[in-house]
Amino acid sequence: MRLFARQALLPEGLAWDVLLELASDGTIERIVPKSSPRDAEQLSGAVLPGMANLHSHAFQRAMAGSAERRESSDDDFWSWRHAMYAIAETLDTDTLHDIARNAYRAMVLAGYTAVAEFHYIHRDPSGAWHAERAANALALVAAAREAGIAICLLPALYAHADVGGVALRPEQRRFAGTVDDVLEIAAAVRAAYAHDGDVTVGACAHSLRAATPEQLRALVDGAPPDVPIHLHIAEQTREVHAFAAVFKQRPVAWLLENYAVDGRWCLVHATQVDQRERNGLAASGAVVGLCPTTEANLGDGVFPFGPYLRDNGCFGIGSDSNVSISPVEELRWLEYGQRLITRRRIVAAANDGASCGEVLYSRAARGGAQACGRASGALAVGRRADLIVLHESDEDCTPAVLDRYIFATDRAAPRHVMVGGRWRVRDGALV
Amino acid sequence: MRLFARQALLPEGLAWDVLLELASDGTIERIVPKSSPRDAEQLSGAVLPGMANLHSHAFQRAMAGSAERRESSDDDFWSWRHAMYAIAETLDTDTLHDIARNAYRAMVLAGYTAVAEFHYIHRDPSGAWHAERAANALALVAAAREAGIAICLLPALYAHADVGGVALRPEQRRFAGTVDDVLEIAAAVRAAYAHDGDVTVGACAHSLRAATPEQLRALVDGAPPDVPIHLHIAEQTREVHAFAAVFKQRPVAWLLENYAVDGRWCLVHATQVDQRERNGLAASGAVVGLCPTTEANLGDGVFPFGPYLRDNGCFGIGSDSNVSISPVEELRWLEYGQRLITRRRIVAAANDGASCGEVLYSRAARGGAQACGRASGALAVGRRADLIVLHESDEDCTPAVLDRYIFATDRAAPRHVMVGGRWRVRDGALV
Repeated sequence: MRLFARQALLPEGLAWDVLLELASDGTIERIVPKSSPRDAEQLSGAVLPGMANLHSHAFQRAMAGSAERRESSDDDFWSWRHAMYAIAETLDTDTLHDIARNAYRAMVLAGYTAVAEFHYIHRDPSGAWHAERAANALALVAAAREAGIAICLLPALYAHADVGGVALRPEQRRFAGTVDDVLEIAAAVRAAYAHDGDVTVGACAHSLRAATPEQLRALVDGAPPDVPIHLHIAEQTREVHAFAAVFKQRPVAWLLENYAVDGRWCLVHATQVDQRERNGLAASGAVVGLCPTTEANLGDGVFPFGPYLRDNGCFGIGSDSNVSISPVEELRWLEYGQRLITRRRIVAAANDGASCGEVLYSRAARGGAQACGRASGALAVGRRADLIVLHESDEDCTPAVLDRYIFATDRAAPRHVMVGGRWRVRDGALV
Repeated sequence: MRLFARQALLPEGLAWDVLLELASDGTIERIVPKSSPRDAEQLSGAVLPGMANLHSHAFQRAMAGSAERRESSDDDFWSWRHAMYAIAETLDTDTLHDIARNAYRAMVLAGYTAVAEFHYIHRDPSGAWHAERAANALALVAAAREAGIAICLLPALYAHADVGGVALRPEQRRFAGTVDDVLEIAAAVRAAYAHDGDVTVGACAHSLRAATPEQLRALVDGAPPDVPIHLHIAEQTREVHAFAAVFKQRPVAWLLENYAVDGRWCLVHATQVDQRERNGLAASGAVVGLCPTTEANLGDGVFPFGPYLRDNGCFGIGSDSNVSISPVEELRWLEYGQRLITRRRIVAAANDGASCGEVLYSRAARGGAQACGRASGALAVGRRADLIVLHESDEDCTPAVLDRYIFATDRAAPRHVMVGGRWRVRDGALV
């Protein structure tokens, strides 16, 4: 397939009149800036690499908008979690599949081309295993493939209710699994989709609350050597304090000291970090998973994104609870949160003169792909052809195209979306 | 006209199967909950009162997305203002009209049914008056009427560059006017649209920087007794300090002490207030004009909305710089900003059990209408028929409809929009 873009975001920056040649396996084969359309399909809106959504709990889409009513004078993350558990307790595999497919469709329509699904509803509603232990995991991957989005499935180890090996509570019975269980689920999904270039599988612990140090070690050692490793790290101050009470260190500091944390790692909600932890994260090459809309909805607090970016830290964005699904809104408010705190403008900036929107978008796309273990996140030869095409307008074709898209668009859904070389959205509708 | 809503937000809360009868003058004549459709047009999505946008500088829409590139290591509100002045210096009346019409169209499509246009580009680009002193004001009102949105035109007194009567700078030459000038412009617009129920005119001083106490007094005394009075009050800490250095009081405190501030007043960007000022504002009945997207884009800081709401303070929302135009986003992030600061959920809540989205929406609609001097902001007999109809879905027709709309919609633009009894948007397109 040959595409001709009036404007495209390449790794080195915005380029004009770009010819993209795609191989039949869904990768990008050739890129020629300052080219001519010849027999290529002409795309008049700007072409951007697709955005990976590096953190999703698809089932939580079922409660979007239904937990915004005051239950007590002290509603917070933990009271929200009660409502979330009530949903998690009841879903059967078919319902989980349907909810996930709808959520994934909304993601593709919004311009996400891949999703990392952080999955912990392993068992059936009674707490027993399905005959096929990977049944729910496979249902999620099937939902993603039906919706047309690439997926990195993350079967989460969820063995304990809190630090110190506290036993799971009854409402957490469906999450229960051993290291072997989640490695088995991962292997089953990997085998089922071995020939699908748009499915990857990672290693995952729910958190340092849900896995003991020994379990985390066994999980990391047991996983294939090159897959991404995800965990929730420091979302709420309460969990940071609970961890520190037992381990005499904050969660990020502990992880950095006990593991060779590197680019394989994706630390979701590194919200509660001190300066030393922030510096360590930036130096590690790990991807910090930031979910501004969910973190705001749940009242988590704000990650020190500005200083982290100045240290050249890697990051990506996630829709997490899926209360709303929009890469534009995540990036816009990632930047805006910092502006409100610092009372300065243009927090995300680069030395090469890239605009704020360009820095936000290109770095989040790159970090998100890394966290999905996916060769994408940039329009470059050899990468998967994951891309979006913005609605065209004469104005769009300017150096400010990314700033318009991130900060000023009232039409945030892209015009077309391609995943792995196949059009999944054309003219704003699912193919 | 007769409309039948499966679900409608009435002043007393959500109601089902609501018949709305509209008079030919564009007001609501009769409301019957638990009714039947009979010969009325059936609207399957929820019907909400239209939202007033209580603060707009339409011309700034021309720079949306074009000021997001780092110019120095210290970009802030004041450096942004340089870029904004560069646009303000060049626009002629026709261009101003066209930019405004596009901005107002975007507002109607997003669900705003009225706009308070805070207008200070009074003179021509050279700094001379047009033959018709109200030429630009009239162009703005014409743009609004063409776009189908109701307007409250606010010709702003802009006499000085800073507190203490500092002379305007050359780049502010187009803003210059005396109290008599702006009263004359207001009177001209009022006369031209005397018979249009969708045009109101208010009194307006740019700020306590731009008008001396004597000028503000003359303006308030010279305006008709019942029109709204708007001003920017305390957006940036720098202006608060500059004001306090001269007047020995903070701006809000000074205003509350020197004026019988009441429901006529709309104080835009009351961002920088201490607790006493906040309490005084809430008790005054004035509308606080909050513009979360612009205040975030400009790095202004965050108004203490939670405590203010607990004191039953009045507020409304504005798109201000028009960098983005969405009542949903303004309300969502008004709430989210507070959640991030307090680390609690559900900040906007009511004693009557209304949900968070319902509190945010109904109170902002009421405050916005009040700030526009417009009998609207609620679906009630005698009010203008300003309303929006959401996209229908089976899920929408629940008590959580407002929470879904504010927090969870990925389709924020309403299906239909009516202003003063006339459909202006049908099926997402301008009529």
